[in-house]
This record gives sequence, C-alpha cells and structure tokens, in this order.
Amino acid sequence: MDSPEISDILQAHTRIKKYIHNTPIHSSTRINRITGAELFFKCENFQKVGAFKARGATNAVLSLPDTGLRNGVATHSSGNHAAALAFAANIKNTKAYIVMNETAPPAKKNAVRDYGARITFSQPDETSRKQTLDEVVKDTQAQFIHPYNNTDIISGQGTVGIEILQSVPPPDILITPVGGGGLLSGTAISVKNISPDTKVIGAEPYYAKDAYESFYSGSLKSAYPPKTIADGLLTSLSEKTFSIISNNVDNIYTVSEENIIYAMRLIWERMKIVTEPSAAVPLGAIIQHSNIFKDKRIAIILSGGNVDVASLPFY
Amino acid sequence: MDSPEISDILQAHTRIKKYIHNTPIHSSTRINRITGAELFFKCENFQKVGAFKARGATNAVLSLPDTGLRNGVATHSSGNHAAALAFAANIKNTKAYIVMNETAPPAKKNAVRDYGARITFSQPDETSRKQTLDEVVKDTQAQFIHPYNNTDIISGQGTVGIEILQSVPPPDILITPVGGGGLLSGTAISVKNISPDTKVIGAEPYYAKDAYESFYSGSLKSAYPPKTIADGLLTSLSEKTFSIISNNVDNIYTVSEENIIYAMRLIWERMKIVTEPSAAVPLGAIIQHSNIFKDKRIAIILSGGNVDVASLPFY
Repeated sequence: MDSPEISDILQAHTRIKKYIHNTPIHSSTRINRITGAELFFKCENFQKVGAFKARGATNAVLSLPDTGLRNGVATHSSGNHAAALAFAANIKNTKAYIVMNETAPPAKKNAVRDYGARITFSQPDETSRKQTLDEVVKDTQAQFIHPYNNTDIISGQGTVGIEILQSVPPPDILITPVGGGGLLSGTAISVKNISPDTKVIGAEPYYAKDAYESFYSGSLKSAYPPKTIADGLLTSLSEKTFSIISNNVDNIYTVSEENIIYAMRLIWERMKIVTEPSAAVPLGAIIQHSNIFKDKRIAIILSGGNVDVASLPFY
Repeated sequence: MDSPEISDILQAHTRIKKYIHNTPIHSSTRINRITGAELFFKCENFQKVGAFKARGATNAVLSLPDTGLRNGVATHSSGNHAAALAFAANIKNTKAYIVMNETAPPAKKNAVRDYGARITFSQPDETSRKQTLDEVVKDTQAQFIHPYNNTDIISGQGTVGIEILQSVPPPDILITPVGGGGLLSGTAISVKNISPDTKVIGAEPYYAKDAYESFYSGSLKSAYPPKTIADGLLTSLSEKTFSIISNNVDNIYTVSEENIIYAMRLIWERMKIVTEPSAAVPLGAIIQHSNIFKDKRIAIILSGGNVDVASLPFY
C-alpha cells in the first residue's frame, strides 16, 4: 500500500478523533474583501501540539501493533512532527525518541521535553542527522516514524480534508502549504474522493520550491538549500508524497517572502489568530496570484501556530 | 432607568444578535495545569471590530428612535468604542462622529476611518476632548453615546454573560477586565440574575486601580494618572457603572504589569490567540492571586484583540 485509499483516511479519522480536536473554521469579512474571494480557514493552529501534525503522528502510533510499540517510537524532526510524535506516544504510554539539531530553538526543545520525549542531538546536517537516528534506533529498537514518507502519517493528515467537507459546502478550491507534502497529499486524496470538482492546490515559498519544480518537471528534485521564513516548509517531497501529489493535485504556486509576511500579518491582525509563517503561505499565494483565486470559494488550511512571539517579522 | 434589568439585557441580545458574533469559548489543558483551575475563555477578540464593544454600541444605536439617528451619533474614544460606534452607525446607515486624541496610533485612526466615520482630533487632555466633543455635537446635532455611562451600552455588554451561561454549566467565578466598567457591570447583572451562586470578579491593572479603590472605599474616586500596558483600561468608573458594580460585584483584584504580560504571552503561545493586553488582565489576576482561584471553574472574558503586532511586549 504505497498510497492511502479514502477508506484508510476515514478509518484514520475514526481511530484518532477521540484524541484530537475537530478544529473550527473561521472566516473574515475584511480578508474576503481584500482578496475578492470567499475564504474558509481551517484552524489547525488550535490543534493539539499547535499543528495538524498531531493527526498523522497519532494515527501512525495507534496503527502500530503492540509489539511494534513495545520499544517506543523514534523520528528526526526539529519541528511540529517531533512534538506530535511525543504527544502520540503518551497516548499509548510508550517512549518517544527524537533526534533534533542541536541548533534548534530552545522553545522547540522544551515543547518536546514537556511531552516526556527523550532528545538526542545531531549536528545540523543531513549525514549527522541520519547517522544519529540510526544509532538511536539500533540502541532502543524503537519504531522509526518518518515525518511524511509514511502511509499512516499521510492518512492521518488527510483527515483535515474530511472535516472541512463535513463543515462547509464543497469549495471550488482547497489550498494547503507544501513542505514534505504529507498534508497536501493526504488532503488531496480525501478531497478528490469526496468532492471531485474541488481543485487541490499546493502553496510553497519561492525560496523552497522543490515541490513546484518536481511537480512541473515530473521527476522528484532533490532539495537545493532552501531559505525561507516558513521554517516548517524547508523539507523536500519524498517518493510517496511526490507520487500522490503528481496524481491528485491540480497546481502548485510559489510565494515570495514579502507576501508570506503580509499574509501572516493579515491573519494576526484581522483574524486575531496566532499562526506560524508556514501557515500563512496559502493566503500569500491567493494574494500573489489573485487572478486565479478571485471570486472563488476557497478552503485554506492554517497548518500550525507554533512561533516564537518574541521574534516576529513585523515592523 | 439608571441600572439595566435582566430583561433589558435579554432584549438587547435579541436586538443585536443578527449583527454580532456569538463568539466561541476556548480552553487550554496547559493553562489549566499552570493555574490549577478549569478556565473557559470567551473569545470576544473574535467579535466584530475585534472587541466586545461592538455589542454595546450596536445596542445603543439600534435602541435610538429614527429621529435620534437622523443626525448621526458621536463619541470620544481613541480605542475600541470608536470603531464599535462606527460599525454600529453603518448598520443603520447613519454617520458616526468620533473625537480622538491627535496622538492616537495610526492603526486606530485607520480602523475608525475604514468604517466611514468622521474623525475630529482633540489635544490629549480631558478639557480639550470634552470641548471638541461639545463642538462636534453642536455642529452636527449628533446623538452623543458615552462609552460606558449609558444604560443601553451596559445592557449590550451584558449580553456576553448571557452567551457564556448558554454555553457552559454555571461557573464558580466570572472574571472580566475593568476600565470604565461597562463590561463588568453589564455581565454582573446578567450573571447574578441567571446564576446567583457565580461570583463576579473584576481584574484591574495595579497602576490603573481606580475601580479597586472606589469599590473598597465605597465612593467614586477620580482617576489619578494611570499608567499601564493595558491601554483599554485607562478610563475610570462612571456614576452608573460604579453603582452597579458596588451592588453586584464580589471582588476586584489588581494585577502587576509583569503578570499582565506573562498572561498575555501564555494566551498567545498556548492558545494561539491574539489578544490585547487589557484582555490578559483577568488571567494575570488568576496567576497573581492563585490561592483564590485554584480548583475553581472560571469563565474569563477575553475582551479584545486589537494590538499593534509590530510593537509587542515580549522579549
């Protein structure tokens, strides 16, 4: 099973919904007026651990057999997947082993520790990270849960799409941020199966546009060093997410750093909601490519709200 | 009618509910753990114009006879009441004339202008403000709507209490910020009539504690120059609000600037909600006077979310 079916996503929803929030959908008269579109914001910043990642991690952990859980779970992440896996491990009273860059912000380290996970630090490069993870898995015999190249993770993220379509009439467009592609590929499967006429679009920072280039070239591009304020979108697509996105997504649009920050500020000031920069990328795309989105009914996934409020890009 | 009855507040709710949001109630496992209490946050930061003031202003405008509306409405305010009155005037297609300090932040001026109100600037002192307002009212024959020494305004603010008690089981305590006292007095009347066992408490910055001193001395104290980050709470009680608060409120607690900022940061980081400093004062009181609030079920009114995100007190 390389790509989840809609039934896997529905089963994931049944499996996890006791542990996660069915997050609210907000709208803003003012932002509708600014964009000329009708926008529905699915507030995953209010989700457990402050991001949609709680869904995938919970589904992956709850899908493991007891034997697979016995020695705990492990991953590499300096971001929301780390906290999400730690949160999910708590549900099953098992251990979470997280490999993080030693340079990760103290707030992220503390969030993971607060959930009782054990952190092992790596150097901030791919080789050290992989080697450190291999050692942790060898020492602990924990089950490795990849942040997005994992079918159960993708099914879990796809549950956001189910909830949106249960709450609002089928939109013309669903738009999500794209980093590793777990959220975009999961929700593309759920939306294309339930509402085939809804276009599914990914929004990516211009300076981290590996998904854009992979999608339009038709072959998976390895990441060149990405550089964007949207720190949740630095990762590149994987084989699984690239394949699903190629088959189910209609377009990917890139967004400038200026429009990401402008969109983030609109969300904070007009909607009174704390979102991380990555979550503002879809609204940034709508503003930057306004001719595509004008007069459309659009569901936007606000992917998360984990941000250091003492260090914001507003001035 | 110097003090509204519960029937006035219920009628206000019927009158305004088509124009305002029945705002959601959020909670946070983490903040409950930190405070040792069970907290319900009524999110008036998501209200129209970003603050509960939309309720009172809408009720006051809709309660005017057509003859009273003909020449528009006027007020003095550099804050949320100004935007709220401009919003309410739009509902009835009448004009709003706002007297603001010329030193008010550009964001506040623009918010009021966005609603189509006409601004007249005064010097930043009480005498100039009053004189400018008198001139505006004389010139325009507009109806003056005081920000809180007005029974219809107080009835409108009291509708927050109705919605809380319609949404959650009667709490042990309701706590609101207190500036001019419109919100505290309105909700005190609604809560004491519907749930007499619920204690009603006001929370006030220590450096703007005129309500605290008036309440405990039994006579209305005039304001000495207040100085607090909670810019919505600089005003003093009026005759009407002092009388209602004296008869219906159980306690007023003061809060240090440090605890206001700490509480505000908790709300932003844990709940992912943008609130203005004034809205964080009740949580600050719960933290500062923890022995009073521990183990209690407490409804908190997050009064508003209008804040300049480029100038925050976090570091």
